[in-house]
Formats: sequence, C-alpha cells, structure tokens
Amino acid sequence: MTRLCLIAGDGIGREVVQAARQVLEALAVPAEFVEAEAGWETFQRTGNALPEQTLAAVQAANATLFGAVSSPSQRVAGYRSPIVGMRKALDLYACVRPVQTPPLANARAGVNLVVVRENTEGLYSGQETREGDERATAQRIITRQASERIVQWAVQYAQRTGRRKITVVHKANVLRKTCGLFRETALRVLSDAPDLQVEEMLVDNAAYQLARAPERFEVLVTTNLFGDILSDVASVWGGGLGLAASANYGTRTAVFEPVHGSAPDIAGQGIANPLATLSASVLMLEFVGLNSYAERLQTAIQAVLANGPYTPDLAGTATTAEVVQAVIAQF
Amino acid sequence: MTRLCLIAGDGIGREVVQAARQVLEALAVPAEFVEAEAGWETFQRTGNALPEQTLAAVQAANATLFGAVSSPSQRVAGYRSPIVGMRKALDLYACVRPVQTPPLANARAGVNLVVVRENTEGLYSGQETREGDERATAQRIITRQASERIVQWAVQYAQRTGRRKITVVHKANVLRKTCGLFRETALRVLSDAPDLQVEEMLVDNAAYQLARAPERFEVLVTTNLFGDILSDVASVWGGGLGLAASANYGTRTAVFEPVHGSAPDIAGQGIANPLATLSASVLMLEFVGLNSYAERLQTAIQAVLANGPYTPDLAGTATTAEVVQAVIAQF
Ligand SMILES: CC(C)[C@H](C(=O)O)[C@@H](O)C(=O)O
Ligand SMILES: CC(C)[C@H](C(=O)O)[C@@H](O)C(=O)O
Repeated sequence: MTRLCLIAGDGIGREVVQAARQVLEALAVPAEFVEAEAGWETFQRTGNALPEQTLAAVQAANATLFGAVSSPSQRVAGYRSPIVGMRKALDLYACVRPVQTPPLANARAGVNLVVVRENTEGLYSGQETREGDERATAQRIITRQASERIVQWAVQYAQRTGRRKITVVHKANVLRKTCGLFRETALRVLSDAPDLQVEEMLVDNAAYQLARAPERFEVLVTTNLFGDILSDVASVWGGGLGLAASANYGTRTAVFEPVHGSAPDIAGQGIANPLATLSASVLMLEFVGLNSYAERLQTAIQAVLANGPYTPDLAGTATTAEVVQAVIAQF
Repeated sequence: MTRLCLIAGDGIGREVVQAARQVLEALAVPAEFVEAEAGWETFQRTGNALPEQTLAAVQAANATLFGAVSSPSQRVAGYRSPIVGMRKALDLYACVRPVQTPPLANARAGVNLVVVRENTEGLYSGQETREGDERATAQRIITRQASERIVQWAVQYAQRTGRRKITVVHKANVLRKTCGLFRETALRVLSDAPDLQVEEMLVDNAAYQLARAPERFEVLVTTNLFGDILSDVASVWGGGLGLAASANYGTRTAVFEPVHGSAPDIAGQGIANPLATLSASVLMLEFVGLNSYAERLQTAIQAVLANGPYTPDLAGTATTAEVVQAVIAQF
C-alpha cells in the first residue's frame, strides 16, 4: 500500500497539513499516513530541526507532504532549515513549481508555466564562512553533473507534458564561470532535444519578464536561488503564494509542499488557505500513480477557486475548515 | 565649469546617449561634454572593454552618462563588463534606481519606491574559479564595511527625500553568514535612525511583493545581485525597462545609465526609447547641482510621457528623433 508521510511543521503548517489529511481521507485515497516532525518547535524541544527518525520516515514513504516551518530570525547555533536539509540529505534535486491562471475573477489569462529549479547546490551549498564581524563568504557551487541532471529533468518534463519551449535562466554575463558552466551544460543537453525551442535569458530580465509578460514562458530551468526568487514572482499569476505548490523530486522519493511559509501572524486563527497544500497533494498523488484521485482533487480545487468560499488571502472571510468542507463537498 | 563625460557604448547605447546630448544642449546646460569609449566594440578593436583613458575621463569628470554595452554570450578571454569594472574601479558603491508611477494610461497608481543596491561586492566579487568541465565556484563576499556604507547611504537618502520606511532585503534564512552579516549590520545602522520605520524581508518574498504590491515599499536596501533582480521587477511599475534610470554613486564621482541594455535586435533602427537615458540625465544634473535644469528636463519628460509621441516599446510608432524633438519642444 502507498505510504504517505505528513510533516506539519510550525505555524499554519499544522493547519494546512491537517486540512489536507482530512481531504485525502474524505477522498478515500488508498494510502496509509505516517506522521513525522520537523521545524522550529522540534528544534527547541530536541535540538534538531530535522530529526533522524523524520528523515527515515520520509525515506521509507512513497512520498511526503510537508507543511511549513518557522525559522529563527537570529542566527541560532545548530539550526538549519529542515526543508533545505531534506532536499540535500535525500538528493531531492528537482524543485518544480507550476503556475497556471486560476479560475478567479480578474486573474490574468493565458499563464501556464513551470519553474524547474536545481535544488541541491548553488548558493545553498551550505559552505559559508565568517571572519569575525568584518567579512563573510559563501560559496556558490555549480557542477556539470547537477546542471545536466536538472536540465534533463526539465526536458523530459517538457516532452511528457507537451510543452514546446525551455528558457534557460542564468547570469553568465557576470558569473562567467559558475553560470557559464550551467549555461553551456544546459545548451548542450538541449541540443539533443530538437523538438524544443530553446531560449536563454539573464536572471534580471527573466524576473522582469515574469512580472510583466508571464504568458511568454513555458518551462524555465535555472539554478537554486534564482529559481527560489523567480518562482515566487511567477506565483503572483497563479493567485499568489496562498495557492502555489511545490514538488521536490529525487531519484527515490519526493516531498511536496505549499510555497508559503508558516505565517506566524495568522497561525492558530484557523484562517490559513489550505489550497496550496491541496495543490501540492495533487502533485503528490500523481507522483505515486494515484492519477484518478489526483484528478478528482484537482477538479474540486478548481471548483472551489471558481465559486468560493475564500479565505482572507483571497479577500474572503472563510475559515480553513469551511474551504475544506467545500472541497470535500465536490467529491 | 561642470564637465560631463558621455560613454555611448554599443547598440542603442549610441542612439540614446546621442539623443541625451542633443537634449542637454538644447536645454543649454552649463557644462562641457567629453566623450569616452567602452564596450564590446571597443574590446574587439583594442582588447580592453574599459580602456584606461576612459576610466581617467570618468574620474576627471563631475559625472558620467553611460549608454549600454553588449556582452559576448560566450566566454571571451579578457572580456569583463565595463559597467561592472567601472563600479569597482571607481568605488561607485551605491546603485540607486527610483521607480514612480509614470503619467501613462493604465499605469498602476501610487508607486514611489527606490531600490538601493550595494554595488561593489557580493556575487560581483569577480572571484570565481572553474575546475575543468566539472565544477565552478563563485565567492559571494559580504563585508561589514560595505554593508554599513550602503545602509547609511539609504538612510541619508530616505531622510533627505522625506521617506519614512526602509526595507532590508536578504536571505539570511539560508545564507546565514553572508546575509546574516548584512542583516545585522543593516539593523544596527537603522537603530540609529529612529525616525525611519524598519522592515526586513527575504529576497524571494520581496520579489513577490514587488511584483504584486509595489506601493507598500518606499526604500529597499539590499546586496548586489538581489538589487539587480529586484530593481528590474520594480521597473515594471515605472513603465518598464524602456523608462528605468540608474545612478551609481561613489565618494568622488557618479555614473548614470539607463537600466536597459544595448538591445542589438533594434539597434540602428532609430526607434530606441531615449527617455530612460533622459531620466538618468535628470539624476545626473541633480548630482552636479544643476537643479533647475534637472527640474525642467524632468517636467519635459513627464509631459512627453503623458501625451506622446511614444516609441514602439510603449506601443507607439515614434522614432527616437521624434521623441527628442517632443522633449525639446517643452523647453
Ligand atoms: C524556506 C526557504 C529555505 C526555502 C528556500 O529558500 O528554498 C523557501 O523559500 C522555498 O522556496 O522553498
Ligand atoms: C549588464 C550587467 C552587468 C548589469 C548588472 O548585472 O549589474 C545590469 O544588469 C545592471 O543592472 O546594471
């Protein structure tokens, strides 16, 4: 039987993962759920934001749904972001964020893009040093192997989903060696995919184009931190961060998450929008091959987006529970 | 007498700097002009994209207007971006990009922000190594001194221009040492400015907020590459890159430029929009203390924006020359 691991995390992470579980159970998804813990509260209690048992549970599961965690705003010795840790420990190398025009009033039509982000290196290398109060250095590491792998992933994704164009985003005019290596590797991989139109774009221009003409993009592929920034810009067109879903695919398992954070300002009020986590759940169900369940959930999400009820982030007054009920009512 | 250095560069850089010169002469600005060269064509002819004489001319001038240069898309031994070189050689440490709602139909009202970008270090350190075809590393260097200086610049700018809020943008949840140093330095400097409201924001969220709710910002201060990306996103609300102007302030001189590039696709057609370069000229005139000339030019630009004629980037059919004539007709 399919085993799905649920990691609630902190703040509204708990509320939206709980909401997703209710929805998945109402959908009678043929899967068993295991729960595991991570995040700031876990760190405060155990000294480790990503305990060994959690990593083991994620590895043992077919897929994982991850809520959101809080990060300390001050440096805290020993604390490292568990989502970053998980990506690295489990080699979840492809971070994938689809953005589509939602069935919402005033939504910009014609947006259907996906940001494919390298998820294991770049400025997330974890190699940083600090010399007292004067100077700090971070290593931005780019390898041919990781670049090749992520671009191959993007190519296969494009071909599988019938996309025609890939935009390679870099900053090789300044980062001539690191972005240069990413760029030339990408262009070489893409030269083996003559069915795809290839375009390259500097990251500043890509951010600009995403903010003003998102319909021109199909698949963007880029390095880690650029993908982090660009996918947030892109999410504006999908209805905002309250709706954006993210997949972290590895060779053996995958972790799905809403893009939003733990939102301490609204945590505990029962008004978090569960739809991003439900969209992440759609991606998770597809990943484990439960396609008909994925489709039913996706259809229900679209219906609720079209007709409400809406949580405050979408200018409504509904609670998380009301949105959950409305989704379940669609099944 | 005030001496202004003009560097046309490549592509439409030539057309817009030529246009600016015509306008400044028509305005009878009490200044003498000296011309200097830089860019890809200069590199091809001389082997140096930023010749010593050019640097000397910039240093000897009160201020410089820089057009745009082309960069080779392949790595070319010895080529380095002259604008990056100039920023570093002349310690032009503050890159400042104001964005305001333009008097254009359909423009989003209420935008009035400025991105203040550290311009000498970060990922622009120039310290990159490549190990064969397998791996490359770039150093992201953050110093307390440069961080302090740029935040102090932002504070003084905010106070001088009557702004009330500063947003410090970083990614200290991942780049805990480099962004951590920037962040703590910024917050310390800002604690000496109790008249200013201080907010901090992660770069991914700042890009998102700039793309969807730009009116919430007044002054953003951030590191080099983040500022590069964020200022391009912000420029959407000022009418796009065709209108965005940039100042690079140092301790002794300053270089002003349009944010757009050399646009090889439209170079030579006489249809480049000169207004970004004219807006950069306004900032330059203010810098050298020719405030009444700056005001007259700014008023003329606003009038042309409100009534046309418009170049193709603003959905019109006017030529560069026609826009120049329209601006001059306002004097
Ligand atoms: C929480 C943070 C470490 C993370 C990242 O930077 O990758 C987040 O912004 C994301 O996009 O998933
Ligand atoms: C041309 C390029 C080197 C430059 C930069 O990255 O700073 C440009 O994008 C800018 O914003 O001025």
